[in-house]
Amino acid sequence: MSSAASSTPVLAVIGGGQLARMTAQAAVSLGVPIRLLAEGPDVSAAQVVRDTVVGDYRDLSVLREAVEGCAVVTFDHEHVPTEHLETLTAEGHACRPGPAALVHAQDKIVMRARLTRLDVPCPRHRVVTTPGEAEAFAASVGGFPVVLKTSRGGYDGKGVWVVGSAAECEDAFAVASSTGVRILAEEKVDFRRELSALVARSPSGQVAAYPVVESVQRDGVCWEVTAPAPDLDPELGVAAQRIAMKVAAALDVVGILAVELFETADGRVLVNELAMRPHNTGHWSMDGAETGQFENHLRAVLDLPLGSPAARAPWTVMVNILGGDHGALSEDLYGGFPHVLARDPRLKVHLYGKDVKPGRKVGHVTAYGDDLDDVRERALHAAAWFRGDLGMESE
Amino acid sequence: MSSAASSTPVLAVIGGGQLARMTAQAAVSLGVPIRLLAEGPDVSAAQVVRDTVVGDYRDLSVLREAVEGCAVVTFDHEHVPTEHLETLTAEGHACRPGPAALVHAQDKIVMRARLTRLDVPCPRHRVVTTPGEAEAFAASVGGFPVVLKTSRGGYDGKGVWVVGSAAECEDAFAVASSTGVRILAEEKVDFRRELSALVARSPSGQVAAYPVVESVQRDGVCWEVTAPAPDLDPELGVAAQRIAMKVAAALDVVGILAVELFETADGRVLVNELAMRPHNTGHWSMDGAETGQFENHLRAVLDLPLGSPAARAPWTVMVNILGGDHGALSEDLYGGFPHVLARDPRLKVHLYGKDVKPGRKVGHVTAYGDDLDDVRERALHAAAWFRGDLGMESE
Repeated sequence: MSSAASSTPVLAVIGGGQLARMTAQAAVSLGVPIRLLAEGPDVSAAQVVRDTVVGDYRDLSVLREAVEGCAVVTFDHEHVPTEHLETLTAEGHACRPGPAALVHAQDKIVMRARLTRLDVPCPRHRVVTTPGEAEAFAASVGGFPVVLKTSRGGYDGKGVWVVGSAAECEDAFAVASSTGVRILAEEKVDFRRELSALVARSPSGQVAAYPVVESVQRDGVCWEVTAPAPDLDPELGVAAQRIAMKVAAALDVVGILAVELFETADGRVLVNELAMRPHNTGHWSMDGAETGQFENHLRAVLDLPLGSPAARAPWTVMVNILGGDHGALSEDLYGGFPHVLARDPRLKVHLYGKDVKPGRKVGHVTAYGDDLDDVRERALHAAAWFRGDLGMESE
Repeated sequence: MSSAASSTPVLAVIGGGQLARMTAQAAVSLGVPIRLLAEGPDVSAAQVVRDTVVGDYRDLSVLREAVEGCAVVTFDHEHVPTEHLETLTAEGHACRPGPAALVHAQDKIVMRARLTRLDVPCPRHRVVTTPGEAEAFAASVGGFPVVLKTSRGGYDGKGVWVVGSAAECEDAFAVASSTGVRILAEEKVDFRRELSALVARSPSGQVAAYPVVESVQRDGVCWEVTAPAPDLDPELGVAAQRIAMKVAAALDVVGILAVELFETADGRVLVNELAMRPHNTGHWSMDGAETGQFENHLRAVLDLPLGSPAARAPWTVMVNILGGDHGALSEDLYGGFPHVLARDPRLKVHLYGKDVKPGRKVGHVTAYGDDLDDVRERALHAAAWFRGDLGMESE
């Protein structure tokens, strides 16, 4: 691609999901060309990126083809094998985040061990290899239920089991033995709510910390996000941001780091998960912050100065559009526009170009304003309409 | 392209400049696939649209190929021949705006005649065929200087001459006789400043009127835009918006209509030019309004409800990045990022992927905030830096 700016890098993005799609959208403004490695010719990001290579990110030769001529490589997901990232790095491509950082978002056991060494507060946890060990762990944290997680490969609630007895552990260990992953047991935290602390960090060490948000999950999937987290104790908010900044620096994360946290009933924050890429709990920032997370991810991985992460409105609420199971309307997202856009001229809609399947994330809506109740109602109503709930369900 | 939404239309965009580029960027959020007809494989919009046809928009067979399967057709520019648009319309494609409207943005003589019949205030004007007729017209409006314009084909100051005598009219008539266009003479308006009234209008008649802005031109090219126009008499602002709404409705414009106006020294507004597409004086809205002009253009041509055109901040200033002639820096826009982004974390930059040539529009910057002087300084400084003026020139 010819470009006006002789120094303009081409940025390789591995993975063709909605995060890559919105990264590419942000790259249009910066004039940065994107080379996409997509799983298929018509996946979400491939629909909007001209320079797309179709192939399997687990294949080193495919990766090499995709990053050819690209100084910097970044990611839509955390599933690229570590050894391939090390090879690409050795061959002169700056992988951002790099493999040494990314492993902490790929492997929950590695993550827990590292965070514990960093003195970052986490739920109590133990690697377990049998239902008996899980039972022993449960006994050590006050009994069942406890949470079992596969060390690798889980997302959106997959690879996570809340178990109430040793017998209920069988599913997790069956997955472990068939896939070769290990199982991490964690205490089931008595949490008041879930928070997320998002930071962008550049190779030179600049950090932009977004306001801490509240996220609501349903069935393990992000449902809605409120920015900032309502009624958050300011000291706890700063503690959450400090954790994210400490982890980002210690692990040398480049790009967006999302730290998902539990706010406990007794007023502490504990780290639940890490993600090293633009994150669902940061989508609010596209319309609600001075600089959206996708632009700041780009700036960070390109080692450009970061944009302000400050909120533009007192309240911003993002609600995911999940595929519904309510018949024709829910399969036709475009058909939702006449109602949703006419009802709320200030609503922002982001669709991902994905086929609608029950429970699948196919888009999100964002509302912002001065009154939280109003903002929340607008966003929930629009998402319900797109989901095919015909606006009957307000929550 | 497969799409989740069975009713999702594919939108054809004719012309591959920066307006098409930013239209495509906005279409990503709506999940609307774009089919682009571009002048070349690497022009501004073609860099960011997967589904691009390369060809000449003056060739009907090329146009037919480009709009195949597209229910709706819209435009990056106003240069597609009227007869081709009429053919496409007859063949079932909704051209928005349609040829009957678009001719008023293509032909200044047609535009002036129509606006005069609509009783819309315009500079005094007359079609002239000889320097002698131009001199007679000048005498009728108080003498030279007057303005000569080609009826068709002018933009960004091209095809416009300010003439001080009958002898100085030769250039214009030479162009007219060599290209077959006619010449319109207009009084040289004693204007205080230039304003722009932008509206989006849908086929069903919904209209969103953006705040009236002040634009500053240099050498016939848009240099900076302030939203809203400072110290504008509220009644005059409403008058400008009414003119834009009246023209949009009378001419059945669909999409964005930009009405460029003179604010006269004696407190009136006179229509200077019309444009029926997203317009340079509307770029501020991308970051400064609830709904950017590109998204509202999309919504309008797709007959979806329009988004709020209200400003998000008290003041927004957009400054064009024009190609400079100051050496290496000015040819390397990307090299401008470290300074510009670090100096101003709230600045928004939009680059167009175009080769830098002196005077060429290659991007724009936008700043917004509560203090107009501060906002203006930030935008002017950033544009000067990108231009290669090294921040020495504050205006």
